[in-house]
Amino acid sequence: MSERIRLGIVGYGNLGRGVEHAVAQNSDMDLVAVFTRRDPDQVATVDPAVAVHRLDDMASFAGRLDVAVLCGGSRADLPEQAPRVAAMFNTVDSFDTHAEVNTHFAAVDEPARANGNTALISAGWDPGMFSLARLFGEVVLAEGSTHTFWGRGLSQGHSDALRRVPGVAGGVQYTIPSEEAMDLARSRGTAVPAEQRHVRECHVVLEPGADPDEVEHEIVTMPHYFAESDTRVNFITAEELERDHAAMPHGGFVIRHGTTRSGAEHSVEFSLALGSNPEFTASVLVACARAVHRLNQRGEVGALTMFDVPPALLSPRDPTELRAGLL
Amino acid sequence: MSERIRLGIVGYGNLGRGVEHAVAQNSDMDLVAVFTRRDPDQVATVDPAVAVHRLDDMASFAGRLDVAVLCGGSRADLPEQAPRVAAMFNTVDSFDTHAEVNTHFAAVDEPARANGNTALISAGWDPGMFSLARLFGEVVLAEGSTHTFWGRGLSQGHSDALRRVPGVAGGVQYTIPSEEAMDLARSRGTAVPAEQRHVRECHVVLEPGADPDEVEHEIVTMPHYFAESDTRVNFITAEELERDHAAMPHGGFVIRHGTTRSGAEHSVEFSLALGSNPEFTASVLVACARAVHRLNQRGEVGALTMFDVPPALLSPRDPTELRAGLL
Repeated sequence: MSERIRLGIVGYGNLGRGVEHAVAQNSDMDLVAVFTRRDPDQVATVDPAVAVHRLDDMASFAGRLDVAVLCGGSRADLPEQAPRVAAMFNTVDSFDTHAEVNTHFAAVDEPARANGNTALISAGWDPGMFSLARLFGEVVLAEGSTHTFWGRGLSQGHSDALRRVPGVAGGVQYTIPSEEAMDLARSRGTAVPAEQRHVRECHVVLEPGADPDEVEHEIVTMPHYFAESDTRVNFITAEELERDHAAMPHGGFVIRHGTTRSGAEHSVEFSLALGSNPEFTASVLVACARAVHRLNQRGEVGALTMFDVPPALLSPRDPTELRAGLL
Repeated sequence: MSERIRLGIVGYGNLGRGVEHAVAQNSDMDLVAVFTRRDPDQVATVDPAVAVHRLDDMASFAGRLDVAVLCGGSRADLPEQAPRVAAMFNTVDSFDTHAEVNTHFAAVDEPARANGNTALISAGWDPGMFSLARLFGEVVLAEGSTHTFWGRGLSQGHSDALRRVPGVAGGVQYTIPSEEAMDLARSRGTAVPAEQRHVRECHVVLEPGADPDEVEHEIVTMPHYFAESDTRVNFITAEELERDHAAMPHGGFVIRHGTTRSGAEHSVEFSLALGSNPEFTASVLVACARAVHRLNQRGEVGALTMFDVPPALLSPRDPTELRAGLL
């Protein structure tokens, strides 16, 4: 297990930058290059020594890359890029449109398999670590119920909705799980209606002259996004927005409550509190890239998810050492 | 994946009874028989229809059992039984002497491999689910620290120590993790000295005429067990002991705190609150038995731990359904 793993990054936004950081924390890996659709001269990597190439030049890296870590978005980038890159290299992606996971799986499986590559889809924390928590929860407590809560975290979709309200100059929305709802999930496995599971905390900068009451009313009555939830609006200055709300924290809880046949009740809980959503996601992708490389060497080709990965393959440590140190 | 899995239970104490319960919760499995060193007529199974046989007759079940679930103890039973049974059948055990895991692994690997069997060792919650939490924690946060806390739970070893104190007629000891120590682990990854990580709560029934002050002094000054910890002694009646302290609750927390290269801090936490320690352990063993059967069918023979099991193999559900439902 001492061979070094050569990674490429495809797409260089917050996630791609996170992968560059994460590779630096894993001493068995090297970053070969970043691939971008932009002009490579316009891409400023954290380490200026990192090579940046055009995405179209990727094929010329055959034999020089072990795994391509795909850092594009699930809507526009991955459906097109993942199958194309999986025909050339082993891949890891963070495809997170839950409803289309099996479609994406099939789209990537075919070219990967045809070319002897291994393609791990939907890695990260949700899907990813949370998916594993849901799976482990239901296998160790066969009769029970599982609930996922998100937050405290910055919601990109709800922040975007907020910023479309007339009179709003800027803002962010944090999703906060309801303590009452989580306690019910833990102690009895009971679900509360979706709208009562999370509180939505909005921090809003007003445009000059905008009426705060009117803006607040527009926000809390917005259907689908805020009307159905406990939504709280807090007005802040542009300076405060920049100073206090630039980070991208996120996290959440997966709670399984179950009963064994004697009537004994049990709860299993997995939670994350992340200082930076993209950096943590990147860190998971990099561990998965290690496993993908090893699975490919074992001859396991085609599409996979984290459900298919023996956990030991995620670690740089030797199996004997893992058993002695962590079991 | 629709073929039924035929299990045997080896050793019928609390854990074996838990496995019988757990098999009943998993509709893809059948319990073929319980094997015991005792006189089979003296073993009362939960379901009286379950066949009970002598351990020495196990060999005659060749071809009729897919996996033997070993429910003996780690000190006296498993070191001898596990290698012997692994020469005949696929096995799962809950060997939990952390320091001897690799010795046990080697002892089981040889006979299992020589006979084309698959033997999963050290399954349960610690080792087992907690081991996985420690592994996942360190692979997704390469730079950080991991802390395990146990409780609230009944400690068998400390309860035994308590009962050896002169003047004590009976009693139990619960290990309770210190909230302060857990908060430090979560927020900063800081360790407190081992003695300050847990509070030891003792519920003691006095013998007639025993002096409570003397008994309490003997307990709280007992080296290795109580002297170094925050130990609290509470006197109860024999009726209270029987009524309120017969269950075997346990659980705990695995907390990973780490930092990504930009300086963002993250914490990953896995916790269990178990109404019955042996029943939950049994439930994990049964899920592992399913995976062992499938791994053996794939030709993966020899000793394994939960680190080597692709999580999807623990589930009765089809991979496509798992992706659609849980990813």
